Amino acid sequence: MKVQMMHGAGGEVMGELLKVLSCVTHNNAGGIGLESLDDGAVIPIGGTNIVFTTDSHVVHPIFFPGGDIGRIAVSGTINDLAMMGGRPIALSCGLILEEGFDVGDLEQIMQSMNTALGEAGASLVTGDTKVVEKGALDGIAINTAGIGVAETVVRDNGLMPGDRIIVSGTLGDHGLAILTHREGFDLGDQIRSDVAPIWSLVKGAMAAGTIHAMKDPTRGGFAAAINEMARKAGVGVRLEEVAVPIRASVRSAGSLLGIDPLEVANEGKVVMGVPEEDAESILAAIRRHPLGKDAAIIGKVVEGSSVIMETSIGGERFIEPPMGDPVPRVC
Amino acid sequence: MKVQMMHGAGGEVMGELLKVLSCVTHNNAGGIGLESLDDGAVIPIGGTNIVFTTDSHVVHPIFFPGGDIGRIAVSGTINDLAMMGGRPIALSCGLILEEGFDVGDLEQIMQSMNTALGEAGASLVTGDTKVVEKGALDGIAINTAGIGVAETVVRDNGLMPGDRIIVSGTLGDHGLAILTHREGFDLGDQIRSDVAPIWSLVKGAMAAGTIHAMKDPTRGGFAAAINEMARKAGVGVRLEEVAVPIRASVRSAGSLLGIDPLEVANEGKVVMGVPEEDAESILAAIRRHPLGKDAAIIGKVVEGSSVIMETSIGGERFIEPPMGDPVPRVC
Ligand SMILES: Nc1ncnc2c1ncn2[C@@H]1O[C@H](COP(=O)(O)OP(=O)(O)OP(=O)(O)O)[C@@H](O)[C@H]1O
Ligand SMILES: Nc1ncnc2c1ncn2[C@@H]1O[C@H](COP(=O)(O)OP(=O)(O)OP(=O)(O)O)[C@@H](O)[C@H]1O
Ligand SMILES: [Mg+2]
Ligand SMILES: [Mg+2]
Ligand SMILES: [Mg+2]
Ligand SMILES: [Mg+2]
Ligand SMILES: [Mg+2]
Ligand SMILES: [Mg+2]
Repeated sequence: MKVQMMHGAGGEVMGELLKVLSCVTHNNAGGIGLESLDDGAVIPIGGTNIVFTTDSHVVHPIFFPGGDIGRIAVSGTINDLAMMGGRPIALSCGLILEEGFDVGDLEQIMQSMNTALGEAGASLVTGDTKVVEKGALDGIAINTAGIGVAETVVRDNGLMPGDRIIVSGTLGDHGLAILTHREGFDLGDQIRSDVAPIWSLVKGAMAAGTIHAMKDPTRGGFAAAINEMARKAGVGVRLEEVAVPIRASVRSAGSLLGIDPLEVANEGKVVMGVPEEDAESILAAIRRHPLGKDAAIIGKVVEGSSVIMETSIGGERFIEPPMGDPVPRVC
Repeated sequence: MKVQMMHGAGGEVMGELLKVLSCVTHNNAGGIGLESLDDGAVIPIGGTNIVFTTDSHVVHPIFFPGGDIGRIAVSGTINDLAMMGGRPIALSCGLILEEGFDVGDLEQIMQSMNTALGEAGASLVTGDTKVVEKGALDGIAINTAGIGVAETVVRDNGLMPGDRIIVSGTLGDHGLAILTHREGFDLGDQIRSDVAPIWSLVKGAMAAGTIHAMKDPTRGGFAAAINEMARKAGVGVRLEEVAVPIRASVRSAGSLLGIDPLEVANEGKVVMGVPEEDAESILAAIRRHPLGKDAAIIGKVVEGSSVIMETSIGGERFIEPPMGDPVPRVC
């Protein structure tokens, strides 16, 4: 079998490829390990929950409306730490560069990384730099790994019937920003990536109530995230289409291009399941955060096993787990 | 300025490129950070010294005599943790795959990673998988980051006049294995990579005496490592050529190809500076380890600032810091 683009697209097809990981028997360091396929791992060390996660980034193009590969490399890892309840502390940076890559561009990327680190309150403490010959890589790839500390660990598998589903803002912005920019649409500043570290938003939400489950809707978008959360918890979800925040510009670009904004990556959002009684206070806390103004309660957890959307015209449709993100190299 | 191959070769030229890191102001999480340019960072968390490091691997070819990219990806990170005195605990794995990459090869690589993890007593707990379109990457790149715990932190800058310099075995094996294999030399099994995780060897050495400084002689080889250790400590080093362990096959391949075995990467070795009074017991401990049978005391630390080799014919020559490793994509 040969690797296909969809094997890296965050959805069902990637899940198939990840079966190669089953040969890794040294897969848990005492806490939450590889078997959980959560946003990160947790390792209890000396009474502290150390959260550990990584993402590599190959986004194309490397500069796009609203961000660049440096900002995404830092934000992606910060957000996976945050999804486990982890306060981000330290990041590593593994650069792979193509011979001929512009050093000025690299400086700009490192500066973006530094800005995002500042926003998240984390530090870049170690790294590595490799160069491959011209033609052996398309410009640059950046891996970041991150360490955080969680007072309360939050999983992606904790949804319970009755929980309310909250999203921290509009969906689909990053994926459609990349795609429209790549296709050369002149949309001015109408569609911008949402890429941002959201630890402080998550921290505020955690202080406002109990969070049963959370996940960042990156590759495969909201549709992949909510289906994985529901599957892992063995529950169903009912969503209300009218409540789902999607920018008008994103919605129209999506229908023009035949792309569902719910299936493309977000890079500064969280999907949460919270007990009904805490939902309003958590929503209020998120909305107080500059990155959470469009947050909304969009549905609830039910017994069952499907994710169903009640449409604005009174019908129902399944939100299926996507085969993968329709935008290649979205992050 | 454009990135050149030598910018990724671990020597003086790479140091120039790394100046782009100076714009990273969020560079320390309270312990040893980016400013030290050591093998890894140290972050004190709840009274524990957490060691954190990363390396990306783009070795070509991906399968070579003595190992493969999976074994090197695990060993490299384990060894950087060990160089800080860190017992390896957990690793991450960031895969970037080219469309069309063989899944059977990937399985073999993951199995190698698992074997090396077992040898080191560490676990792979989290990861990420990205795929890029055919032509955008030469097959596969693997990043690993690692977390360890250090009871005693060891730096690469602690050499003191009078210290003895120990190497844990023969030098140049990995670099010349890659190069001769790539050039298509039919050397049978004569030159094999030394790639291996050496935490247990290092642990034994630490238990046998005090280690003032250590570093793994990877890209740029022993010459880069010893010069960096001397420069950071503000000392000189005198080495005895007759004492330096180099396999005859490696030496002849080196002279045939015009490559100095002291300037190419090793992937399972350590260079240490230890107080004279501990040198013999540390050497004995290393030699008791299966990977340390060829260990030797090869010189001593002196006042001054140069690394000088007393040659076997009674002369002297400088061991200069190399511009970079002469073997491209050696790891
Ligand atoms: N190469 C790999 N080695 C080990 N674990 C992996 C690897 N690739 C993915 N995983 C694991 O599979 C799960 C899903 O990975 P994925 O990258 O989709 O998560 P994510 O980082 O939350 O999403 P995204 O990468 O879209 O931001 C995670 O638990 C991750 O640790
Ligand atoms: N892209 C980067 N971002 C942050 N720090 C970096 C980066 N590249 C290198 N460094 C830092 O520069 C120093 C030298 O890196 P280098 O990769 O040569 O060390 P190493 O891993 O010990 O050697 P090797 O990679 O040959 O095994 C290390 O302290 C490393 O953390
Ligand atoms: Mg995630
Ligand atoms: Mg992620
Ligand atoms: Mg390195
Ligand atoms: Mg090192
Ligand atoms: Mg290294
Ligand atoms: Mg990931």
